[in-house]
Amino acid sequence: MALLTRDTAGVFAIAPTPFDSDGEIDYASLGRLLEFYESVGVSGVTVLGQMGEAPKLSHSESSALVSFVLDKTVLPVVVGVSAPGYAPMRALSDQVMAAGAAGVMVAPPNTLRTDDQIVSYYQGAAAALGESVPLVLQDYPLSFSVVMTPAVIARIATTVPSCVMLKHEDWPGLDKISALRRLEQESAMPRLSILCGNGGLFLDFETERGADGAMTGYCVPELLVDVVALTAADHREDAHDLFDAHLPLLRYEQQPGIGLSVRKYVMTRRGLLTSDTQRAPRPILSTAARTEIDFLLERLARHDKRVKLVS
Amino acid sequence: MALLTRDTAGVFAIAPTPFDSDGEIDYASLGRLLEFYESVGVSGVTVLGQMGEAPKLSHSESSALVSFVLDKTVLPVVVGVSAPGYAPMRALSDQVMAAGAAGVMVAPPNTLRTDDQIVSYYQGAAAALGESVPLVLQDYPLSFSVVMTPAVIARIATTVPSCVMLKHEDWPGLDKISALRRLEQESAMPRLSILCGNGGLFLDFETERGADGAMTGYCVPELLVDVVALTAADHREDAHDLFDAHLPLLRYEQQPGIGLSVRKYVMTRRGLLTSDTQRAPRPILSTAARTEIDFLLERLARHDKRVKLVS
Amino acid sequence: MALLTRDTAGVFAIAPTPFDSDGEIDYASLGRLLEFYESVGVSGVTVLGQMGEAPKLSHSESSALVSFVLDKTVLPVVVGVSAPGYAPMRALSDQVMAAGAAGVMVAPPNTLRTDDQIVSYYQGAAAALGESVPLVLQDYPLSFSVVMTPAVIARIATTVPSCVMLKHEDWPGLDKISALRRLEQESAMPRLSILCGNGGLFLDFETERGADGAMTGYCVPELLVDVVALTAADHREDAHDLFDAHLPLLRYEQQPGIGLSVRKYVMTRRGLLTSDTQRAPRPILSTAARTEIDFLLERLARHDKRVKLVS
Amino acid sequence: MALLTRDTAGVFAIAPTPFDSDGEIDYASLGRLLEFYESVGVSGVTVLGQMGEAPKLSHSESSALVSFVLDKTVLPVVVGVSAPGYAPMRALSDQVMAAGAAGVMVAPPNTLRTDDQIVSYYQGAAAALGESVPLVLQDYPLSFSVVMTPAVIARIATTVPSCVMLKHEDWPGLDKISALRRLEQESAMPRLSILCGNGGLFLDFETERGADGAMTGYCVPELLVDVVALTAADHREDAHDLFDAHLPLLRYEQQPGIGLSVRKYVMTRRGLLTSDTQRAPRPILSTAARTEIDFLLERLARHDKRVKLVS
Repeated sequence: MALLTRDTAGVFAIAPTPFDSDGEIDYASLGRLLEFYESVGVSGVTVLGQMGEAPKLSHSESSALVSFVLDKTVLPVVVGVSAPGYAPMRALSDQVMAAGAAGVMVAPPNTLRTDDQIVSYYQGAAAALGESVPLVLQDYPLSFSVVMTPAVIARIATTVPSCVMLKHEDWPGLDKISALRRLEQESAMPRLSILCGNGGLFLDFETERGADGAMTGYCVPELLVDVVALTAADHREDAHDLFDAHLPLLRYEQQPGIGLSVRKYVMTRRGLLTSDTQRAPRPILSTAARTEIDFLLERLARHDKRVKLVS
Repeated sequence: MALLTRDTAGVFAIAPTPFDSDGEIDYASLGRLLEFYESVGVSGVTVLGQMGEAPKLSHSESSALVSFVLDKTVLPVVVGVSAPGYAPMRALSDQVMAAGAAGVMVAPPNTLRTDDQIVSYYQGAAAALGESVPLVLQDYPLSFSVVMTPAVIARIATTVPSCVMLKHEDWPGLDKISALRRLEQESAMPRLSILCGNGGLFLDFETERGADGAMTGYCVPELLVDVVALTAADHREDAHDLFDAHLPLLRYEQQPGIGLSVRKYVMTRRGLLTSDTQRAPRPILSTAARTEIDFLLERLARHDKRVKLVS
Repeated sequence: MALLTRDTAGVFAIAPTPFDSDGEIDYASLGRLLEFYESVGVSGVTVLGQMGEAPKLSHSESSALVSFVLDKTVLPVVVGVSAPGYAPMRALSDQVMAAGAAGVMVAPPNTLRTDDQIVSYYQGAAAALGESVPLVLQDYPLSFSVVMTPAVIARIATTVPSCVMLKHEDWPGLDKISALRRLEQESAMPRLSILCGNGGLFLDFETERGADGAMTGYCVPELLVDVVALTAADHREDAHDLFDAHLPLLRYEQQPGIGLSVRKYVMTRRGLLTSDTQRAPRPILSTAARTEIDFLLERLARHDKRVKLVS
Repeated sequence: MALLTRDTAGVFAIAPTPFDSDGEIDYASLGRLLEFYESVGVSGVTVLGQMGEAPKLSHSESSALVSFVLDKTVLPVVVGVSAPGYAPMRALSDQVMAAGAAGVMVAPPNTLRTDDQIVSYYQGAAAALGESVPLVLQDYPLSFSVVMTPAVIARIATTVPSCVMLKHEDWPGLDKISALRRLEQESAMPRLSILCGNGGLFLDFETERGADGAMTGYCVPELLVDVVALTAADHREDAHDLFDAHLPLLRYEQQPGIGLSVRKYVMTRRGLLTSDTQRAPRPILSTAARTEIDFLLERLARHDKRVKLVS
């Protein structure tokens, strides 16, 4: 299967892991979800990340899930392999790359503080994984408490040839994209594919600043695909009009802790998942919250006809 | 001057501290700002908070600024008096209450972790300040790293009679408002006035959940006033329509670290401030960011005619 | 094999995972280490904790290591099964309990902040693991950023019958031991076995406050065994004299980040491990540090003849 | 009065602020304490730091306290002037330097994360304070959550000429001292005076690694003075023997949160303070803890005859 490159662009959907109401992995829903992603023009899929409830899967479940996804979809698949130590990281990476993954994503452990610690950690990770494994650098300070300057990212990109992509979710983060693109133009670092996270909350401007797309899990990925395409086609006002119509819901989904609940609830209402169950420990979406989401969906449907609810 | 009560409602504007281009307090702009607040229907003003750059003022400047504000405006004024120790907190509180403040706001020091530590801290603070001083409890985990459950807030409200208001900016925070109102209805705690912060990012639903208004500094406070009023008048769709029109800018302003820069920039463009200078250490708003804000203002002006730019 | 109970006492040695110079698990050293533990009067062994480099082992290595240890030693074995989600926690727990472990240890994820969050997490964990699995509650704020009051521990002990032991490593922590013993006497909570960590830095007083022993990995576990025994026999001055003789080294080992390096270095010099290798990412013990440890060992050997160096 | 230089050496005592039992500043005790410091060979005094309860003093109390100290003692005085913003930092610095302080100490705000943020903060602080004001860089990650590599300290030392001293309290921190001295020898940075904190817990080796002394508040500062002098005179075993005799108490005092309580209690028992009162919010030293300290003092007095108790 195709590997990630420095020019990979578009939208990589962070796939939630569907569970049935008993908490078992619901492969029927997962298959349906993968078909849906292909049908709406998504460029790739990311699994075993935080928002895929990876830490709640047993080792054998993780293996089975990755195998299933690699088997079912023609899309490139990025697999989260984050681990504090390199040995288990490599074990998982070896397995999924052999099975056809397009690359692996590594988040920094929250003990990293200084510039040198961050750079060393990724140099060590890449050495452990092997130079042929495309590496996605995950920059998400709100969640990991690790802050990377553009200069640190440039040092990693320069000294770690296998690092080809940045999952960008710093907040604020727009100037960081501009700074990285500037460093590339000045030949101070090799090009990175930059896909943005943070639920898409700034995707309207991230694409304009030079991002190649998004890697996030917004419950209406069609929006992400369209914003990336409209911006690429220079239809700026159209991109913002569509984005703004989605922003009330997108903002609602982008709440820490309950974001995945919102996402699974909407995906269930859209008929993509059979159940919005999350594994314990988990937050519970209140009735009031569900009612608010319904209200937001109803308002959104007036602007975006694709948001049809089936349940 | 009138004191805060458990029924205080409306919008308290968090006033930025205007500086001239040399970094000196710009009282002309501050006076203009206070007149503006009165003219748009704001119910009160908050000074010496984090977003007022209080930690960057010397002791004598803080005193002078509060005196000026209390002198110039007829609006109730809340003063931030947060300090790790009670002695300096009381010194400032005594001074501003004697000069006519409506109440004081206290943020928790970031060393508090357990429920008991948080409750004890506020009990001690209230004892130090005196029972006649209306106290605003500031609940802002993203900034202070202190997490308060509804039960903790109920314990504070129950055991600290002078605590009459909650500045609510937990995120996610909607269910917390509902939980507090439920505890009040069950007589498990006395009523608190709840004014919401977080830049207003969830004000559309916060008011519906039972909040009494907002205490935040969004650069177009007219929006906050209107959403509170429209919701109170049960014009739900109108409230959301207006809110949604502002959301792209509101979200842009609500970025941590650079939010105040955005706010001051817009307020300068609106003619309220003469300069958007912040005191060091400060973030710098890039040219790209300014251009993006201009773009958002232009789009917003199509929906909300009040957003006129004069500079 | 015997299970942990509320009266378990003595010293549980946190066993480091020995690696050969290539980074492979060195089972010969591990076997030697287990024999050594038995020979010096240790009451039990703990594996797969942070100081056992558990996060650096692959899933299959972890399984093999636990099997080996359970096979080789007659001592009760506690296994660290911490995981953010309950499903992988249960998978590992099921496996090791079936193989003869005496209990499992669970550290709190660093996202827990409020009293209720902490209590709920452990209630959920115990429900997932099953009521017959003895649970060790790990209270280590410096490392996990989760602060538990005595009242929270009492709530867990009261509502989670399978929780029979506290691994106590709060700092400061002496008054916490007294507070828990007081709550037990007041029948406000069931008795917990309390074994202390923190490298033993306060073991001289912890035992006097009511702790049942230690669960830590100090490189001279004989000291831990003796302090527990001498205090139990009411030989207070002897206990402190011996403890004080070890304190310079013990303090040196108790440095965060490099503590395990110190421990493995001394254990190698004592002939227990063949190599002091740690898996990457790892700190490196400088030559100066090694020289200082040698100096401390030499001074210690004047007081404690058991500290003989063979390499 | 003499200013701090890059060659300042010896022991700077962090003076606690004595309060009488009503919580008012007890100037009689403070005067007695200053005389005591001079009598035991201390080289300087530090006031308005965290351990001096500076955050619990009102602005006017802080001013009065510094004036008193500068007036009473012939020792060089370092004043803590940490503040998030430069304006209040400069206001206090101007005042104390005009009154005869030897230098000012600046701790980093806990929002600093990246290397560049840290360096910039100190560059800005020094610019605000003025190039003639000797600056002490405080490196205390456990308390401030800011981690500075040797390279970052070297950048600050190189670009901030007024930064002449490092208050070193990283933990572990021995290799950092060696690394800095190496950078100095390689002319990669100008020499810094390095005085160590952390209660003195590693002073035995810190002096051997190249530190110039200590800046901390251990309740028996004679020990700090002696260890620095004995190491300078190459009496290594004597230095360690004396240090080891104090280590049990020193370790007890070095507990976070209650350390100052221990310190004030011992200083009261030694007749230096009239009361061990701390201002609220404060920890309370339990009866059990007081008894343990008494026990440690009694054991210490067998080795160090200077530790006489008068109350």
